[in-house]
Amino acid sequence: MSYFSNINKINFEGSNSTNPFAYKFYNPKEEINGKTMEEILRFGVAYWHTFTMDGSDPFGTGTMIRSWDKFSGMDLAKARVEAAFEFFEKLDIPFFCFHDVDIAPEGSSLKESNQNLDTIVAMIKDYMTTSKTKLLWNTANNFTHPRFLHGAATSNNADVFAYSAAKIKKGLEVGKELGAENYVFWGGREGYETLLNTNMKLEMDNLGRFLHMAVDYAKEIGFDAQFLIEPKPKEPTTHQYDFDVATGYAFLQHYGLQDYFKFNIEANHATLAGHTFEHELHYARVHNMLGSVDANQGDPLLGWDTDEFPTDLYSTTLAMVEILKNGGLGRGGLNFDAKVRRGSFEPEDLFHAHIAGMDAFAVGLKVAQKLLDDKVLDRVMESRYSSYQEGIGLEIVNGNTNLHQLEAHALGLGEVQQQSGRLESTKAIINQYLLTAFAGK
Amino acid sequence: MSYFSNINKINFEGSNSTNPFAYKFYNPKEEINGKTMEEILRFGVAYWHTFTMDGSDPFGTGTMIRSWDKFSGMDLAKARVEAAFEFFEKLDIPFFCFHDVDIAPEGSSLKESNQNLDTIVAMIKDYMTTSKTKLLWNTANNFTHPRFLHGAATSNNADVFAYSAAKIKKGLEVGKELGAENYVFWGGREGYETLLNTNMKLEMDNLGRFLHMAVDYAKEIGFDAQFLIEPKPKEPTTHQYDFDVATGYAFLQHYGLQDYFKFNIEANHATLAGHTFEHELHYARVHNMLGSVDANQGDPLLGWDTDEFPTDLYSTTLAMVEILKNGGLGRGGLNFDAKVRRGSFEPEDLFHAHIAGMDAFAVGLKVAQKLLDDKVLDRVMESRYSSYQEGIGLEIVNGNTNLHQLEAHALGLGEVQQQSGRLESTKAIINQYLLTAFAGK
Amino acid sequence: MSYFSNINKINFEGSNSTNPFAYKFYNPKEEINGKTMEEILRFGVAYWHTFTMDGSDPFGTGTMIRSWDKFSGMDLAKARVEAAFEFFEKLDIPFFCFHDVDIAPEGSSLKESNQNLDTIVAMIKDYMTTSKTKLLWNTANNFTHPRFLHGAATSNNADVFAYSAAKIKKGLEVGKELGAENYVFWGGREGYETLLNTNMKLEMDNLGRFLHMAVDYAKEIGFDAQFLIEPKPKEPTTHQYDFDVATGYAFLQHYGLQDYFKFNIEANHATLAGHTFEHELHYARVHNMLGSVDANQGDPLLGWDTDEFPTDLYSTTLAMVEILKNGGLGRGGLNFDAKVRRGSFEPEDLFHAHIAGMDAFAVGLKVAQKLLDDKVLDRVMESRYSSYQEGIGLEIVNGNTNLHQLEAHALGLGEVQQQSGRLESTKAIINQYLLTAFAGK
Amino acid sequence: MSYFSNINKINFEGSNSTNPFAYKFYNPKEEINGKTMEEILRFGVAYWHTFTMDGSDPFGTGTMIRSWDKFSGMDLAKARVEAAFEFFEKLDIPFFCFHDVDIAPEGSSLKESNQNLDTIVAMIKDYMTTSKTKLLWNTANNFTHPRFLHGAATSNNADVFAYSAAKIKKGLEVGKELGAENYVFWGGREGYETLLNTNMKLEMDNLGRFLHMAVDYAKEIGFDAQFLIEPKPKEPTTHQYDFDVATGYAFLQHYGLQDYFKFNIEANHATLAGHTFEHELHYARVHNMLGSVDANQGDPLLGWDTDEFPTDLYSTTLAMVEILKNGGLGRGGLNFDAKVRRGSFEPEDLFHAHIAGMDAFAVGLKVAQKLLDDKVLDRVMESRYSSYQEGIGLEIVNGNTNLHQLEAHALGLGEVQQQSGRLESTKAIINQYLLTAFAGK
Repeated sequence: MSYFSNINKINFEGSNSTNPFAYKFYNPKEEINGKTMEEILRFGVAYWHTFTMDGSDPFGTGTMIRSWDKFSGMDLAKARVEAAFEFFEKLDIPFFCFHDVDIAPEGSSLKESNQNLDTIVAMIKDYMTTSKTKLLWNTANNFTHPRFLHGAATSNNADVFAYSAAKIKKGLEVGKELGAENYVFWGGREGYETLLNTNMKLEMDNLGRFLHMAVDYAKEIGFDAQFLIEPKPKEPTTHQYDFDVATGYAFLQHYGLQDYFKFNIEANHATLAGHTFEHELHYARVHNMLGSVDANQGDPLLGWDTDEFPTDLYSTTLAMVEILKNGGLGRGGLNFDAKVRRGSFEPEDLFHAHIAGMDAFAVGLKVAQKLLDDKVLDRVMESRYSSYQEGIGLEIVNGNTNLHQLEAHALGLGEVQQQSGRLESTKAIINQYLLTAFAGK
Repeated sequence: MSYFSNINKINFEGSNSTNPFAYKFYNPKEEINGKTMEEILRFGVAYWHTFTMDGSDPFGTGTMIRSWDKFSGMDLAKARVEAAFEFFEKLDIPFFCFHDVDIAPEGSSLKESNQNLDTIVAMIKDYMTTSKTKLLWNTANNFTHPRFLHGAATSNNADVFAYSAAKIKKGLEVGKELGAENYVFWGGREGYETLLNTNMKLEMDNLGRFLHMAVDYAKEIGFDAQFLIEPKPKEPTTHQYDFDVATGYAFLQHYGLQDYFKFNIEANHATLAGHTFEHELHYARVHNMLGSVDANQGDPLLGWDTDEFPTDLYSTTLAMVEILKNGGLGRGGLNFDAKVRRGSFEPEDLFHAHIAGMDAFAVGLKVAQKLLDDKVLDRVMESRYSSYQEGIGLEIVNGNTNLHQLEAHALGLGEVQQQSGRLESTKAIINQYLLTAFAGK
Repeated sequence: MSYFSNINKINFEGSNSTNPFAYKFYNPKEEINGKTMEEILRFGVAYWHTFTMDGSDPFGTGTMIRSWDKFSGMDLAKARVEAAFEFFEKLDIPFFCFHDVDIAPEGSSLKESNQNLDTIVAMIKDYMTTSKTKLLWNTANNFTHPRFLHGAATSNNADVFAYSAAKIKKGLEVGKELGAENYVFWGGREGYETLLNTNMKLEMDNLGRFLHMAVDYAKEIGFDAQFLIEPKPKEPTTHQYDFDVATGYAFLQHYGLQDYFKFNIEANHATLAGHTFEHELHYARVHNMLGSVDANQGDPLLGWDTDEFPTDLYSTTLAMVEILKNGGLGRGGLNFDAKVRRGSFEPEDLFHAHIAGMDAFAVGLKVAQKLLDDKVLDRVMESRYSSYQEGIGLEIVNGNTNLHQLEAHALGLGEVQQQSGRLESTKAIINQYLLTAFAGK
Repeated sequence: MSYFSNINKINFEGSNSTNPFAYKFYNPKEEINGKTMEEILRFGVAYWHTFTMDGSDPFGTGTMIRSWDKFSGMDLAKARVEAAFEFFEKLDIPFFCFHDVDIAPEGSSLKESNQNLDTIVAMIKDYMTTSKTKLLWNTANNFTHPRFLHGAATSNNADVFAYSAAKIKKGLEVGKELGAENYVFWGGREGYETLLNTNMKLEMDNLGRFLHMAVDYAKEIGFDAQFLIEPKPKEPTTHQYDFDVATGYAFLQHYGLQDYFKFNIEANHATLAGHTFEHELHYARVHNMLGSVDANQGDPLLGWDTDEFPTDLYSTTLAMVEILKNGGLGRGGLNFDAKVRRGSFEPEDLFHAHIAGMDAFAVGLKVAQKLLDDKVLDRVMESRYSSYQEGIGLEIVNGNTNLHQLEAHALGLGEVQQQSGRLESTKAIINQYLLTAFAGK
């Protein structure tokens, strides 16, 4: 059967197309610097937002029209797999991602939950033999069930720690079984509601131990996926231990984990933490910690995670600048951790939204590549920092100086000559690139 | 003498130009729907940010290189007028705006301050006889001097109220003398630091009386400018009485002033109040209260008024949609209440920044006009609200129904049929319009 | 049967009590200025948070242990009524509040929903004959069901408008039947997700018409409750039309509704709008629009509605200052629109939380009354604004002056003499009052 | 001469005192657990806010009445020293802190600036021989002068790096000369305005090198002060590299500096970063990185650094809980990095404000000590985390387990038993402690 019978495969038709179910900018086979768009962008569908999410919010119940919802239990789980692979094929998308509970219902015991998982994983594996779509990453949902109400690896309850560990163990096995390229740790409940009842030291130490055990087990079973920490500052907790990339990096260094993990960076989590998306990407990149991306966007005027599909071309362009400068995403990808709005409840909206997001990143890629080709930002940098290429600047960079020499240098200076930072003209240039990238197409 | 000797008059060169001192998108003489861009956009230079502001911030002293700063006192004021009209001409901009203290230094008494003003106003008037640049609006700065530390019209001190009134009186006279199209009231200190020492009722009543007196006096002297309230939520105060457009509208209605005032809406003030720029424009427009615009932008991650030059094309496009739907700005205009960054301290940056802003609004205008021409948003509206064109919907709109009839109607309904809101595809369409507006140019 | 069998009636035991199930500061019969605490504070239990809410959040399912949850459908609804009146009695609280769907499940049709309501309303009415607890207010939930996904009175769909109207009609009838003192309108979906698909003018006009019909119908059936608008800035919508009190007041004036409505002010909604709780109370009070209070608190570092039980004594004290200056709340009250945290899932936590909130407001009342008795703030005001008691200040206040006279006065002034605002010492005094209010008890 | 002739020495008079110039709660000689309040709290006056700050803000000029302002240049600097030591003595405060430019004006060259510093440092040293007030810390202001407009140690200009280094060298010498207990690094301009023109990697590497050179030089000259990084997220920059404690800790670890630095934590910087004050203290404490405190408070509804004097007793209590659990502040202290409001411009307000802050922390100390003595929070912790004292929990904590064992344990569990987090009752208990701490005094 078909779950999206009224939708045909989405093809590239170009910017003049008026077909809402066509790519206007994303052309998977178009080459950019010797690689195809598909290879560079490595888009992924988020199983939860696309096949599980029902459109409920804290003030309203579900609204989504999903034809698989006529089923329940394991039948529903199976129908979702069928719908998913039909969707992947029609969208022509190379990757997907899931949490354990997205694909299979929890049973009445851990054992039964694992059996449910095994059934669906086998079904997915079977689909993957004929589908081009691969598993970008999987993860364990250790935050929805009431047992995680005080945390998972950072719970005050050792049984919950053990339960969480068992779910991660299974998750690693599932990832290996399905050939996942990455494995993600998002600690939705790893934080606190109030410091008044929290032993932060014990909780963070336990989280460190937990991650070391996961590293060890992956090694044991020969699961070579890239491990990723996904930072988020708060929500559902009041404070989440992986607040942002820098906080996560402090944690990883403190617990000797920095060589085993990189970061999965989400745009909306960045802005909730008070940073731009590109800041988080950049910080991770220059510390060699950029792993993968949850491609979405938030509303800067709203204080919660809206997980909107990415359409802001400034954001996608500056993200792609970072990604290209990183030499690409390696084993990571651009996972659409994004949901259609509660009011966009028709199945067609799932296509509209993914097309919107893929086109937005395709534009970002092309504008970013052109900015790099023309060395627009590089030339700004070279000029601004040229003083570190010679003389005292070179001594500084080479670590060959000290406060005595620097003081002597400073005493010999008149007033320092500065250059304008040229923020306004740089922004104008970016607009010019954006507006003219598709001229003549 | 020339203050910008190395800059020639800025001309339109089109999007392929690499001349940083050329308009790429703003073409003042280009016609859009029978009016020129210049006539529609009515750009203005803000005297304070461009000729007075020195680049200081709460943690640093001034950085700006301004050749007129070699003068002081009235000589400085005169040099600024010369520089201003040279700048206006080179930028080819139709309007400017000022506060009293921007153009002339305060004297040791109100009388002397007024004399200083008279001198400079005469000089400006003389320049205006040969310049195309007109006065969009003027205003009185009733917030910088220590006498306004507890407010101006809302001061706890009646002498300060009187002093403020005297400055407004002079401001109205100056506006009339120079043919100002509008007169602006921004109450920078009209609010409170703490409710603990504030008689809000008395202060708001006094503000109401103050504005009535201003209306009366303008009528008395035959000054027919449009009066404008400029909302801002906070900063420098903890709470400013004109928090946003809706709050200002509540105030105007309460004091019977709604027929005498419209709003001067600033983008950065909108976002500080928790609204988008287009929301404030829209709310004002549908209440027939949209007067003029302070064209700038803020940083959504920063909690203070950054007054950046507008470069975000989403913001300029959606602003222009509102302005075009308003039938234009009437006597208002787009005043660049924007300052170059502290690091953009060279005189050239003033040109870069204005060009960036003018180009961004020109793009916004063209994309908005195309959206309107193609009825992109109108068609969404017509379809979504069609139920109010007939049947019970028409009865509702015509005010011909009541709870009895509506209950009877509802009891007869099965479950209501809804339409998707199509947020994601609408955003994709806007991107498509943005990216293709200049294709082929 | 008993739903809280391990809890006895909560009594006042005073600040030295170590019994967690005792009032330490709230003494219902204690007289303050000739009225009892109970009469002044008029506390109410929110049915939804206490008997319906299950502890779910956007990232987790329900956690609450509620013994009535073994029932379902109408049996569950009846069990909740039994539990509610047991809770009211044990808490010794004079009021409660509910939405229609809190007390009775929606049926498969509007007719069946109304029948369900009738059954439970009759049951509640029966309980009320022997209970001291009265209905502070009721309201219709026009936001949870998918039919309201694009709004209720502001839906783009006229059928939804009609459905909403029918629910309000029933709500008014229920309120009359149960002797509600107030009727509340919270427009959870009355706003927009995006301006791009929104006809704000039509929507706001419709909301105006809707409220007029409600006023007319209440008059028709002789339901004399006070009508209340409850402002909230956003969530679940991106923008809610009743953003804050001032915005609501603008709306009421514009549609000629200001004589028929007051405001139900929620602390957490105030802070989400960028205001303090006391600001919203104060603004409403000085405009004679303070109706009732949703007593809770938010977390200033979180961007969503946390609806915590109020424990911040600064907030309760300054709120009570406003309420006492208002001459009390009239027919309004202090409704605990507050939920126990997801981690506080035991039934005992419902008692802990209400005791915490009631004690916090009792402290606020006593400290506020002492501040008023000692004229602490009044003396600050009198001194600060004394210049409006005579001379030019009196002329201003009496409306007997104009810009000519004020300018003449200002020209005669030397530099204005100012007084310190004394913010720091005033805050110290409030701390002193807070810390010593219970000394010697 | 006297600069505060109308103020006598501030003494402890107790909570019943109505003398505004008396301590009501701070009693320097009162013993708490064998140490005096003065020894525990180690209060310091911030030279800049108290003797240099003029009350200007971005929209207004200075307002402060300071009798030493009749002087200028070096005479002003000397008068400030005289005023400072008179103020310290009258306030009876044990510490003060300064930036280089607070105490001595910059000269026309670095050499002259250093000479000015030498003169004033000698004068201060002389005063210190007879004063009880010691230097808590000093620092170099590398952010106010235009030369630092693009950063200091992270400037794009190597000359600025050198100049900054020279100022730090001098600062370390001054600290040694005056016996400073700590030396602070606040990187006000160490960050970026925009990523578009920023080489973050080079800038952070340079900052790392800079701090290593400072460590080396201090060792060389035998200056054994504790080195402190002061985090702040943004302002004046768009992003500051020392965003918060965790970010700073990531930086220190990355550059091998974690053994040489601790943190100077400011309350207002914490909240601007999205954290509570106590969170930052706690995170630093459990990582053994809590060095010193900038005691102030922000306004949670304002998005900039208001640096208010601390009066919120919740904040001071929870801060003192952390400090007491840290075993005190060691060589650090509580520096009032706080300024009187612009409207509190009289010299008396300096006393009111410091008294308010010192009393607020004295209350915090006493309530915190009572909470600790009664093991209020410790008992919550012991009970909540008891599962880690035995069985599988103990194995986890001891690092003796792995995913295999944990899975086996989890498979043997039924549903996990959880405890309520008891947030509401814990908050009520804190209120009870706060309100009764001074009963009977």
